[in-house]
Amino acid sequence: MEKARFEKQLQFILEADKEKNILRQTHLSGHGRRENDAEHAWHMALMAYLLKEYANEKIDLAKTMMMALIHDIVEIDAGDTYAYDAKGAKTQKEREEQAAERIFGLLPEEQAAELKGLFEEFESLATPEARFARAMDNFQPLLLNDSNGGSDWREHGVQKSQVVGRHAATSLGSKEIGEYSMRLIDENVEKGNIKEG
Amino acid sequence: MEKARFEKQLQFILEADKEKNILRQTHLSGHGRRENDAEHAWHMALMAYLLKEYANEKIDLAKTMMMALIHDIVEIDAGDTYAYDAKGAKTQKEREEQAAERIFGLLPEEQAAELKGLFEEFESLATPEARFARAMDNFQPLLLNDSNGGSDWREHGVQKSQVVGRHAATSLGSKEIGEYSMRLIDENVEKGNIKEG
Repeated sequence: MEKARFEKQLQFILEADKEKNILRQTHLSGHGRRENDAEHAWHMALMAYLLKEYANEKIDLAKTMMMALIHDIVEIDAGDTYAYDAKGAKTQKEREEQAAERIFGLLPEEQAAELKGLFEEFESLATPEARFARAMDNFQPLLLNDSNGGSDWREHGVQKSQVVGRHAATSLGSKEIGEYSMRLIDENVEKGNIKEG
Repeated sequence: MEKARFEKQLQFILEADKEKNILRQTHLSGHGRRENDAEHAWHMALMAYLLKEYANEKIDLAKTMMMALIHDIVEIDAGDTYAYDAKGAKTQKEREEQAAERIFGLLPEEQAAELKGLFEEFESLATPEARFARAMDNFQPLLLNDSNGGSDWREHGVQKSQVVGRHAATSLGSKEIGEYSMRLIDENVEKGNIKEG
């Protein structure tokens, strides 16, 4: 063990701990409190393993899971941008790039490059792993929100076109989960949890 | 997609959500609130990926990460048993076996068997993956606690022999991380955070 290398890895691991304090807009099932980024990432990685049979393409599972585990780490600096916050979305990319530079930069050089690469791959949807991880990123809060009678959508007065727009990417990773998502969305429009339009 | 199969998978995924409400004795770094099981598992899986170079034996990474992600899921029914709670430990095994039966039993049959198998493998330390996942299970709270000046040990009046006993298994998964852990423990004994004896 090279001590300086190990200490860099530990510094990153302790920095990552801060993700547990970044709250999302989604609430835990059972009308619970707001979920944090670490919990969301844990749930996504678990789902990637359990639902891999629905991936459109063959995926490297460890890579997909790691992508899920770290995809929100930039929010330690950049904060969480709500899926339907158009104003926040404008500055999101720049804020997140700077955060990636600093946070992954805590790691030894080749691991910093590897994780920054995984993060950028996830964002770009350029690979089967990124597309399936994105499907999980979309489907996990959909599932929680649906289990809570759509309270997150109702709270924000979200419209069907916004939800459909967001979840369109799910089909790139899994046609089957994408179709299931659209049915869930339609059901929630019918129930009045998502506004028409 | 077979609907009945998918719905079983979703039922398990929603059940797993409850792990986010199970509190451990460890506190987040920066003298934060108590950590929950989902956060701990997320951190462990991330660490398994980043620290794999220190594993004593070659490991299947996706398997190790999934083991980390689900190893505490039985606590949804059985509750968290603190590492130094001798009384709780007596009934822990039986409580956790019943919980594994019910919770993994929500999944389609072959996935139920697979995950129950992963859980039992983790418990038994019978494979390289189980030994490395256990090393992460030990090292993650050690790192947080050390970063907080050992406040979790001080709060519980924990003795060195107890801490060393628990962390002995770390070396089975990673000799290097085991040695590092013993040095951290010694430093905390010197500082008075862990009692002699």
